[in-house]
Amino acid sequence: MNEPHPVIDHLRAREPEIVGWLKAFLRIPSVSADPAFAPGMREARRFLLERMEQIGLAGVRLLDGGGEPAVYGEWNGAPGRPTLMVYGHYDVQPADPVEQWRTPPFEPTEVDGRLYGRGTSDVKGSTTIALEVIASFLAMQGACPVNIKVFLEGEEETGSPSLRTIVERHRALLQADAVLSADGGRASASVPTLNTGARGNAQLEVRLRTAHKDLHSGRYGGSVRNALHDMARLVASLHHADGGVAVDGFHDGAVPPTERQRADTAAFPYDEAGFFSDVGGSAHGEPGYSARERVTLRPALDVNGLWGGYTGGGGKTIVPCEAQVKLTPRVVEGQDPRAVVRAVLRHLQAHCPAGCTLDVVAMNDGSPASTLAPGHPLVRAAEAVLERETGRRPIHVRLGASVPVTSIFKEMLGIDTLMFGFNLPDEDVHAPNEFFRLQSIGEGTRAWTLLLAELATHSPASFHAA
Amino acid sequence: MNEPHPVIDHLRAREPEIVGWLKAFLRIPSVSADPAFAPGMREARRFLLERMEQIGLAGVRLLDGGGEPAVYGEWNGAPGRPTLMVYGHYDVQPADPVEQWRTPPFEPTEVDGRLYGRGTSDVKGSTTIALEVIASFLAMQGACPVNIKVFLEGEEETGSPSLRTIVERHRALLQADAVLSADGGRASASVPTLNTGARGNAQLEVRLRTAHKDLHSGRYGGSVRNALHDMARLVASLHHADGGVAVDGFHDGAVPPTERQRADTAAFPYDEAGFFSDVGGSAHGEPGYSARERVTLRPALDVNGLWGGYTGGGGKTIVPCEAQVKLTPRVVEGQDPRAVVRAVLRHLQAHCPAGCTLDVVAMNDGSPASTLAPGHPLVRAAEAVLERETGRRPIHVRLGASVPVTSIFKEMLGIDTLMFGFNLPDEDVHAPNEFFRLQSIGEGTRAWTLLLAELATHSPASFHAA
Repeated sequence: MNEPHPVIDHLRAREPEIVGWLKAFLRIPSVSADPAFAPGMREARRFLLERMEQIGLAGVRLLDGGGEPAVYGEWNGAPGRPTLMVYGHYDVQPADPVEQWRTPPFEPTEVDGRLYGRGTSDVKGSTTIALEVIASFLAMQGACPVNIKVFLEGEEETGSPSLRTIVERHRALLQADAVLSADGGRASASVPTLNTGARGNAQLEVRLRTAHKDLHSGRYGGSVRNALHDMARLVASLHHADGGVAVDGFHDGAVPPTERQRADTAAFPYDEAGFFSDVGGSAHGEPGYSARERVTLRPALDVNGLWGGYTGGGGKTIVPCEAQVKLTPRVVEGQDPRAVVRAVLRHLQAHCPAGCTLDVVAMNDGSPASTLAPGHPLVRAAEAVLERETGRRPIHVRLGASVPVTSIFKEMLGIDTLMFGFNLPDEDVHAPNEFFRLQSIGEGTRAWTLLLAELATHSPASFHAA
Repeated sequence: MNEPHPVIDHLRAREPEIVGWLKAFLRIPSVSADPAFAPGMREARRFLLERMEQIGLAGVRLLDGGGEPAVYGEWNGAPGRPTLMVYGHYDVQPADPVEQWRTPPFEPTEVDGRLYGRGTSDVKGSTTIALEVIASFLAMQGACPVNIKVFLEGEEETGSPSLRTIVERHRALLQADAVLSADGGRASASVPTLNTGARGNAQLEVRLRTAHKDLHSGRYGGSVRNALHDMARLVASLHHADGGVAVDGFHDGAVPPTERQRADTAAFPYDEAGFFSDVGGSAHGEPGYSARERVTLRPALDVNGLWGGYTGGGGKTIVPCEAQVKLTPRVVEGQDPRAVVRAVLRHLQAHCPAGCTLDVVAMNDGSPASTLAPGHPLVRAAEAVLERETGRRPIHVRLGASVPVTSIFKEMLGIDTLMFGFNLPDEDVHAPNEFFRLQSIGEGTRAWTLLLAELATHSPASFHAA
């Protein structure tokens, strides 16, 4: 069902070479979390710098923010056309527990159409796809359909500690109309999906006190406020018995799920029973929504940690004077995370009885939900490509978790990100025996080729108007 | 108002010698909690063995239970009369923080009628009173009014870890009709008081689980049970908003405070505002009772510790799978601590929603409240003495805290304890600048002399019938 395309032909012919190149990349143990792997991190950068020079990118260099630098290269030969930042990362998770690997984590091994190794799925495979598509465009046509800025991060697996500094220092260089991310993969092996956003979040930590010091429960028990009793009542007040959030104003602004979103969520092949039984959990949450809707389309409020009093071995007969709690709201489209986290704080303050003092230990403004509107050029281009490739309209999905990189690019550069990685959800990322389907290399290089061509049909301004 | 008494005269004449003897005892740093003070512990035992031989006790020896041995001596020259175990302890709290002492902790120093030093009030002062009263009886009359078994513990400040073993190994030797304790002091400097009992307690620790592992709050938040949300609801369900315990069966068996108890409690000079403001706490508890009644005459239920999820620095976006809580009920006269702790567990199980599992981590049978009935010979004798000495009927008071030594003697030997120490509540025990009023030595030796004489008028059987 696909017309011939010289770049796709070129990529298909080069596939063994691309797999070889990917394997060489995978043999470099670029573990960002462990200083013992610093040589591997340097080697991965050298390897990428060389490959980016080789394929014809200009301005190839490291962008330093004080931590592991990003690797950068650009091609600006399409004036008037959109400029796309291609995002990926060259660092990988540690291989521990190494003894649970059936093949050596840094010796990529093909077994039954799967390539096993640390970083195969997350995310050297998809990063290689993106880079080799650019290589084939430049090799076959001497040009890309759009302007390209390749940005490969070295700290994704450690929480991007210097990404803001890198963007701040190189703000002019990194101007672009949108981001295409090789990270953030396909949501299903059986149906085509398109990610159109993610929940935002914020953070709050409060301390409740009922006395200057812990009291002897023999001398005081039964006569005085107990910080843990009051903290328990406060935390219990945050949710209804059915699991819905009971905080006034918590849902303010939340754009109700559209008909399309609810239909797409229902159409998504989702094993709800398995989702819970895999982790021994049980469904609980806002009435009127399915579990998947609750996670992706509705705000949530979770206590992440709570403690107070004596927590060591044996017993200690005290009336604790202090209790502390960490909370994170998750917010959806239309919500201001600052307003939401303040609503939670107001609730806690309003429900805090006389005799208790409540102090804010930590509170941040958080980041809002990210959303690609249905008419956004990134969505329209990706939909066109996926529909052409699969013969089916892709199901729109959203992530329940926030993606820091996406939030940072949106906040600092004002640009949207399309996640277009080709990994699949079962590929054991961050775990032993991580793998990537070799078939995904062909699927990914075809799709990225078509996507760059599609994006070229949109005006640069249209990416910002959306 | 007091008739002449040769033993009291002898004690009064010996008072400088008694103070000198007490100071020598105080100079021995017998800190049981710190192995560095082992020589001090040995020296204190040697000192007591010598003194007990000197004053004419028989069978003077150490009773070993595998830890710090107790020092023992007896006088059995009053056949047909009651046998009283005289309890005290020779170990003291550590002197830390040493830099906050105005006088050296192990160099007893007289200032304005007070004797400063570690162990003065707790409890070498009152132990010396008891021992020197026996000494004067034996010196002046060649006999005591009752049979005496002196038992001086060396592990009171470390929780009496080997006391049960000592009693078990020497059960026959330690048979007695009752215990007179030099530990457990006067409750007020302005009115005479008589302690008639203490609350009992028990212990329960449970773990609540909602999943096999902590879950990512982005992937699961809003759709799954959160162990801390459920634990908060469970703990909140234990009490009414007013602070009263909401557990079915929790108050079962509790003997309501008598008219006399409520009148005595009201008559006790008690600075309720100061009780709370001293520690920055605020009154909260069962309606219909004063703070002092709540602490001494009513059961209570306190959470002593609670924890779950991420409790380190910064944030971690998890849905915690587990939470744990430590609880101690305090029980009063008439209650079976086993039944009470089981009522709490039943409540937790009944309120634990589907999807949560509750495991008992620790649970003990606890110890019941101790009570000396108004007609008990210990009470009648002490009342007679205090009334004669002060001209006022002593106010009956009870302790909110359990006294392990008392519970162990009751449980293992079946005998009741009268606390008849002469320290006062403001003497900074367990703190820097601990002191004992020198005047208490005269008051204490008079009272102990009269008490032993009074107890001689009761039949041995009457101590057990009560």
